[in-house]
Amino acid sequence: MYKLYYYPNNASLAPHLLLKHMGLDYELLLVDKKSNSQKSPEYLKLNPAGRIPTLVDGETVIFESPAICIHLCEQHPEHSLIPPIGDKLRPLFFQWLTYLNNTLQAELMVRYYPHRHTNDESTIPNVIAAQDERIADALAIINDQLAHNKYLIGDELTACDFFLFMLAEWSLPIEKSPLHFEHLAAYLKRLSQHPTVLAVNDIEKIDLTPFQ
Amino acid sequence: MYKLYYYPNNASLAPHLLLKHMGLDYELLLVDKKSNSQKSPEYLKLNPAGRIPTLVDGETVIFESPAICIHLCEQHPEHSLIPPIGDKLRPLFFQWLTYLNNTLQAELMVRYYPHRHTNDESTIPNVIAAQDERIADALAIINDQLAHNKYLIGDELTACDFFLFMLAEWSLPIEKSPLHFEHLAAYLKRLSQHPTVLAVNDIEKIDLTPFQ
Ligand SMILES: N[C@@H](CCC(=O)N[C@@H](CS)C(=O)NCC(=O)O)C(=O)O
Ligand SMILES: N[C@@H](CCC(=O)N[C@@H](CS)C(=O)NCC(=O)O)C(=O)O
Repeated sequence: MYKLYYYPNNASLAPHLLLKHMGLDYELLLVDKKSNSQKSPEYLKLNPAGRIPTLVDGETVIFESPAICIHLCEQHPEHSLIPPIGDKLRPLFFQWLTYLNNTLQAELMVRYYPHRHTNDESTIPNVIAAQDERIADALAIINDQLAHNKYLIGDELTACDFFLFMLAEWSLPIEKSPLHFEHLAAYLKRLSQHPTVLAVNDIEKIDLTPFQ
Repeated sequence: MYKLYYYPNNASLAPHLLLKHMGLDYELLLVDKKSNSQKSPEYLKLNPAGRIPTLVDGETVIFESPAICIHLCEQHPEHSLIPPIGDKLRPLFFQWLTYLNNTLQAELMVRYYPHRHTNDESTIPNVIAAQDERIADALAIINDQLAHNKYLIGDELTACDFFLFMLAEWSLPIEKSPLHFEHLAAYLKRLSQHPTVLAVNDIEKIDLTPFQ
């Protein structure tokens, strides 16, 4: 039985999609972000970075959403959500997962928490404006990749697609949202009808209508 | 023969350390950042994100430094720079590699390129001050991890250590540099004497004396 410390539509969403997609036995434990529970002494023992998510798998405690996704994929290779060692798509899996995480996700974090990156409140609108452009640049690169591929790294669904779907949901309020990009919008529309996405968004009460 | 598109003391440093450590056959190709060659049409064909590094391995072209590191480690498992599938340290390898990349590295990038994250030049000192605090927070978390471990994920050297060494070099000019943290400073001193680190820093002309 896996335990996933989560909060709806947070970085726990990608691991949640994987747990559901693979039909694994799991328990969701809400980290109450409203009362800052991710910084509580008990939670910091599991995850010294004080962020959501954390996965508990028996004796093993893992933080960082991409690391949790890789772990679940490798523990359950029969679901083919990560190309196996030796497959020529495997390095591209890590390339895109990394890019999504260190670029699109990182830029979104600065966009939504600008006050953490400046000591002067009055400059926040400037930070937001700069971030909106950077997020659009990253979405454009992803859109190009989807021009010739059904899924992010080729013809088959992988964990990267669930990760991208999570970030696309976060990006909806951005001025140039993912829906402004032709290939990305079509891909997200398809993914938004995937049974796993429907089931998990239902649990986390996330509205999928913008994608339809 | 691997080809690594690099620039001294850039994100290519971790892959360079791995190539050298494993004694692999490789060629270094300088991307002239001073003339913005990472945004040239030829380079963008290899790496649409227009960043350094890119690795060419036969027909396979890989960008994103962590993805390149994982690829090299998995292609050459005899060097034990990544715990194998099934090993209980493997998820921790991905956890720390991800944390280094999406937190310490991402915060350093905002610190050194603040003008990319605000449209108002006058606010740059505020961004830098905020980033210095965030970088110190990340270094403190890494320092705690090193209090009980010889290397980042346990008793054995892995690719995470070379990745951390790269980021530690970048962090030297920060007000609260890695050398202010007891366990981290001792670990970096040890690593700075490692034959691989000595050899690669010699090639890239990086000064190791601050660590001694
Ligand atoms: N790199 C982490 C980032 C996770 C993250 O930023 N989580 C956010 C929610 S989406 C969080 O916990 N924020 C609370 C905080 O930073 O205090 C991951 O991908 O797991
Ligand atoms: N996430 C990338 C980031 C690489 C990166 O930021 N490289 C910097 C040099 S350290 C770069 O190419 N900067 C030039 C630019 O952004 O135009 C990786 O880790 O490979």
